[in-house]
Amino acid sequence: MQAKTPKDSRTILTDLVLPSETNPLNNLFGGELLARMDRAASIAARRHSRRIVVTASVNHVAFNKAIPLGSVVTVEAAVSRAFKSSMEIFIDVWVEDRESGKRSKANEAIYTFVAVDETGTPINVPELIPETKLESERYEAALRRKQLSLVLAGKLKPSEATELKALFE
Amino acid sequence: MQAKTPKDSRTILTDLVLPSETNPLNNLFGGELLARMDRAASIAARRHSRRIVVTASVNHVAFNKAIPLGSVVTVEAAVSRAFKSSMEIFIDVWVEDRESGKRSKANEAIYTFVAVDETGTPINVPELIPETKLESERYEAALRRKQLSLVLAGKLKPSEATELKALFE
Amino acid sequence: MQAKTPKDSRTILTDLVLPSETNPLNNLFGGELLARMDRAASIAARRHSRRIVVTASVNHVAFNKAIPLGSVVTVEAAVSRAFKSSMEIFIDVWVEDRESGKRSKANEAIYTFVAVDETGTPINVPELIPETKLESERYEAALRRKQLSLVLAGKLKPSEATELKALFE
Amino acid sequence: MQAKTPKDSRTILTDLVLPSETNPLNNLFGGELLARMDRAASIAARRHSRRIVVTASVNHVAFNKAIPLGSVVTVEAAVSRAFKSSMEIFIDVWVEDRESGKRSKANEAIYTFVAVDETGTPINVPELIPETKLESERYEAALRRKQLSLVLAGKLKPSEATELKALFE
Amino acid sequence: MQAKTPKDSRTILTDLVLPSETNPLNNLFGGELLARMDRAASIAARRHSRRIVVTASVNHVAFNKAIPLGSVVTVEAAVSRAFKSSMEIFIDVWVEDRESGKRSKANEAIYTFVAVDETGTPINVPELIPETKLESERYEAALRRKQLSLVLAGKLKPSEATELKALFE
Amino acid sequence: MQAKTPKDSRTILTDLVLPSETNPLNNLFGGELLARMDRAASIAARRHSRRIVVTASVNHVAFNKAIPLGSVVTVEAAVSRAFKSSMEIFIDVWVEDRESGKRSKANEAIYTFVAVDETGTPINVPELIPETKLESERYEAALRRKQLSLVLAGKLKPSEATELKALFE
Repeated sequence: MQAKTPKDSRTILTDLVLPSETNPLNNLFGGELLARMDRAASIAARRHSRRIVVTASVNHVAFNKAIPLGSVVTVEAAVSRAFKSSMEIFIDVWVEDRESGKRSKANEAIYTFVAVDETGTPINVPELIPETKLESERYEAALRRKQLSLVLAGKLKPSEATELKALFE
Repeated sequence: MQAKTPKDSRTILTDLVLPSETNPLNNLFGGELLARMDRAASIAARRHSRRIVVTASVNHVAFNKAIPLGSVVTVEAAVSRAFKSSMEIFIDVWVEDRESGKRSKANEAIYTFVAVDETGTPINVPELIPETKLESERYEAALRRKQLSLVLAGKLKPSEATELKALFE
Repeated sequence: MQAKTPKDSRTILTDLVLPSETNPLNNLFGGELLARMDRAASIAARRHSRRIVVTASVNHVAFNKAIPLGSVVTVEAAVSRAFKSSMEIFIDVWVEDRESGKRSKANEAIYTFVAVDETGTPINVPELIPETKLESERYEAALRRKQLSLVLAGKLKPSEATELKALFE
Repeated sequence: MQAKTPKDSRTILTDLVLPSETNPLNNLFGGELLARMDRAASIAARRHSRRIVVTASVNHVAFNKAIPLGSVVTVEAAVSRAFKSSMEIFIDVWVEDRESGKRSKANEAIYTFVAVDETGTPINVPELIPETKLESERYEAALRRKQLSLVLAGKLKPSEATELKALFE
Repeated sequence: MQAKTPKDSRTILTDLVLPSETNPLNNLFGGELLARMDRAASIAARRHSRRIVVTASVNHVAFNKAIPLGSVVTVEAAVSRAFKSSMEIFIDVWVEDRESGKRSKANEAIYTFVAVDETGTPINVPELIPETKLESERYEAALRRKQLSLVLAGKLKPSEATELKALFE
Repeated sequence: MQAKTPKDSRTILTDLVLPSETNPLNNLFGGELLARMDRAASIAARRHSRRIVVTASVNHVAFNKAIPLGSVVTVEAAVSRAFKSSMEIFIDVWVEDRESGKRSKANEAIYTFVAVDETGTPINVPELIPETKLESERYEAALRRKQLSLVLAGKLKPSEATELKALFE
């Protein structure tokens, strides 16, 4: 399988915040944004693997900024690192001011997807080669996040979590 | 108001075809695609005008190619010509083969939006300056379409429809 | 196949404008109305042909009048002319004032549907025979619209577009 | 207030059964049909009263016949009797065979709505005058249903339920 | 088949009232509540029978209390009596004040479901044994409701409706 | 403010997996489950705080087990620890086999909500006192998760993350 770059899987989903998607403060519901990000991330995972993909985990999502009714929201997803059959997808969410047109960062999220065959069995995916500085940083951090998640799940000894040492020493 | 280019309003909405959006042949419903294109086009019109915008007309949509359940569909919308308070939006719809990743054109559509103030009154929009060859062709054709639509509505005499003469001579 | 009249396919879809279907001005979204009209038109095409039908094109839709939240909207669709396997559907949209009960015309639209078999192959449909004066006018105009659309698509020479001559002479 | 006839409030909602509305047997969900009937009935109640209306009760709905995916369903609602501020709405549901075009009765339902002002306070509605034989039968039965419901709620003594005597004697 | 108790089928569906589910008074639409109750009741029927179940009838629903946008609504459904292949489901709807946390009764409803096999043919269900005082009262009343519904449908002579005599004597 | 227990905020949302919520393998979409869990968690946060609450972060969600179309899914959410104005919500997702009625664990998730006033400003919430062994374990782990998240965000020095030492020593 030929290695791919984040650009190959980059997925852009620009859409409105509709009245049916808002909470009592008239901002986009967390749950609705999670669902939109899941759809964009699944397309990115599919573009990287050319396979059926299923959500494996949502590693961290911070809702830093409320997104009001009527906003234009852009969800950008791209594979940040590929493992054996799993892919980490990094998602940036931008919101756009109608009058000035200024775009500002609203959220970041990290999802993991697994490529599977028709029976649901995991299947290998191509390697990812980062190109830009930001892509390289996210690529490196992806391994730390994977090790951290294995440690927290009790599937990796902290002493073997090579990437985490720096963090806690 | 400063003139803008089609690039300034280009809007990309990539999303899946979900089971709730399909017809008895398991293809994307025409009506659902019309609604998605309307949302993407309204964002393009808003990016051009920085105003509230409302759909004025759908000039022509041809459904050339069925889009099956589970497809990845990309709707790309950009302003193709600006008139006084109205904007013609040209929309290209692409569908992507999961296995090969090949993108093919599924539909084209042309919508017209009007910029309005808070009371719904039409309001001026910036001029559009095409940059690429394709953008220039669409810019020219937009005037023909506008004249044709005025002739068909009885609001312009055929003899004054300067751009249409070539067509019928 | 036995010819049919517009009455045989007339389809009425009266429904409310719900909060989830409105734009920032609290009026029915263009995209949502396009989807409702598509459903009503597809039922009319099916009643005429008794076949599976798919949207082929949306020929012209003018959004003349905003339809506010809470309105009662009536979409009336009927076949206006049948060709070999395609049918033109004329759609009238009415909105009703709650207090006075007065109905006024909000929009008109023209959709084209094609009848297909289980494999998606086009299949012949019955002829349409107009009965009222309005139905006859729409029947005549349908041929002009078809020729115009063929001319614009480069599939018919303007000199052969017999019905369009009157328009531009 | 001028009395009205059932024809004045008759409301027709013809629509498709979409994939998102079906149960594991691929038939229309009971809950979805209840919601459609509620919308059609509320429009009928509004056409009779020209007021805001709210659902007061669903008196009886029998789901006699499954309605498969892809069916064309017609919900017809009309006021069957008006009381002080409440209206009984009788709803007939028809389903249409695609190939033969034959319409058959799928369900009947009876809803009660109350007309209210902007504060939610009940407000008087016009009288209903039945015209056809079927309308008269439903008009008579509506009073029996109202008395029965009052008896069952303990708000009317059986001995005063004049219309019910025939039934149990 | 082993008899079951109402506790075995008790189903709790607590959810928010979202903006897309409200009427012009900003209260939960009757139709939406009917659909939610149908889903909860179908789960209760399924838990009792361990079979596919379909809605047979909605016997009585009274909307006593408006449920405002943003409310927390709890729908509690449990089988109140089992007959041969049908089950009566009693549904209590509670609404919760955000500030005080006080729960109050908003509605009651009674649905009937039938257990069916894969072909849609009715199939026997286990007996229900009430445990609490309230469950016993509902169990007794269920038979009266069944007889009443048979009498009203002309399928049982009033003289044979043993449970109804008390009511009208 | 009076301290509360997890029981005070426990929220149960039992519902079906509908056709409109499934992916190409006919299992519940990750995004749809994220949205349901967000609604249940927001109700739990509200029951604890009696305030408006907004999603602050999704700390970790593992999709261990596919949930097929037609399943009965139970989402149970309860506050696992309260901080100043934020609350950690622990969510358990159960899926139920129709024939055997056996419930099995499908997912776990951890969301954080913040209580806010009408202007969106964070506001204090009551303390949480765990009662059962499982609640105590989750209560302890919540502090570790909070410190870990502060360390990863660069807002806490690893040397000050008292609860994490054990993990990496």
